[in-house]
Amino acid sequence: MTKWFETLSGLKAAAWATLQTGVKQADHPARLPSFATVSATGYPEVRTVVLRAADPAQGAVSVHTDLYSPKVASLRATPLAAIHIWDETQALQLRLSVEVTIQHGAEVGALWGRIPDHAQQSYGVTPSPGTPIANALDYRKEPDPDSFAVLHCTVMRLDVVHLGDQHRRAEFTRDSGWVGQWLAP
Amino acid sequence: MTKWFETLSGLKAAAWATLQTGVKQADHPARLPSFATVSATGYPEVRTVVLRAADPAQGAVSVHTDLYSPKVASLRATPLAAIHIWDETQALQLRLSVEVTIQHGAEVGALWGRIPDHAQQSYGVTPSPGTPIANALDYRKEPDPDSFAVLHCTVMRLDVVHLGDQHRRAEFTRDSGWVGQWLAP
Repeated sequence: MTKWFETLSGLKAAAWATLQTGVKQADHPARLPSFATVSATGYPEVRTVVLRAADPAQGAVSVHTDLYSPKVASLRATPLAAIHIWDETQALQLRLSVEVTIQHGAEVGALWGRIPDHAQQSYGVTPSPGTPIANALDYRKEPDPDSFAVLHCTVMRLDVVHLGDQHRRAEFTRDSGWVGQWLAP
Repeated sequence: MTKWFETLSGLKAAAWATLQTGVKQADHPARLPSFATVSATGYPEVRTVVLRAADPAQGAVSVHTDLYSPKVASLRATPLAAIHIWDETQALQLRLSVEVTIQHGAEVGALWGRIPDHAQQSYGVTPSPGTPIANALDYRKEPDPDSFAVLHCTVMRLDVVHLGDQHRRAEFTRDSGWVGQWLAP
């Protein structure tokens, strides 16, 4: 019997199912991808984000962030990101190359209204994230809809690696209609 | 009693202890950091690597790679990387900004000799990693000392975030002698 990781369609389906599980399940490794950008001065950067949506039909994922965080400044300079997930249970690495649109203000007002109070606490810190402060707790969190931003990520390329007795690696690109191509791992 | 995450020195010590545990313990989250680079064309990239060494005295870490992997090509263009670890047990995020020196050939010959046979399998794949292939298993692995490279990473900046009832974030930079600075999280 063919296993899920032995076909291009099986790997692609597993990749999107993994992303969708991450959105729903708080303790799943796909819940907390690492998100890499390039700073305005050309330095690579990477940090944890929370995966908020994954839409296989559109080939898009999204995360939420503070509009005044350094990653937004980086994305204004270079609107590209790389998203990385390692799911040990499936021995599956996902890498997404995405183009990022920064949505905020009225555009995301309806979404803000649906975010629970405790989660709104994550948007709106004074001083803004990354500012030097004299003591560890010299900051205030006040939920601020103007600080809330959605990073809408259009997936351009999906790179999937399965580690097994024999490793398998494939890429799926938007330009090729997501048909898939095996790569040397 | 002061907790480890309440002081700059406590956070710094926890960061390096975590890195050192990752080197030794196969199932620790610091064993498999994500490693971000910038491609020669300016795109952010990120993938899993295995942490092989962590030296707090030198402020350096290292990983091993295939010399013919795309990440080495990226590092030849931009010898900078960002390394990311999320340790859920400690609720600790580590982010390292590093300058990378690519070591290979005679320089790493002694180290190659100490790598177990099964691990040598990771260096030397034909065609080289990332090459399109017709079928999933159309590649050969032959341990090749000429494909073995060490990425020696000199840490320039360490960014530590502890998520607790109240979040704490600090940065430690080589230029400041690693004294530490609290940041708004």
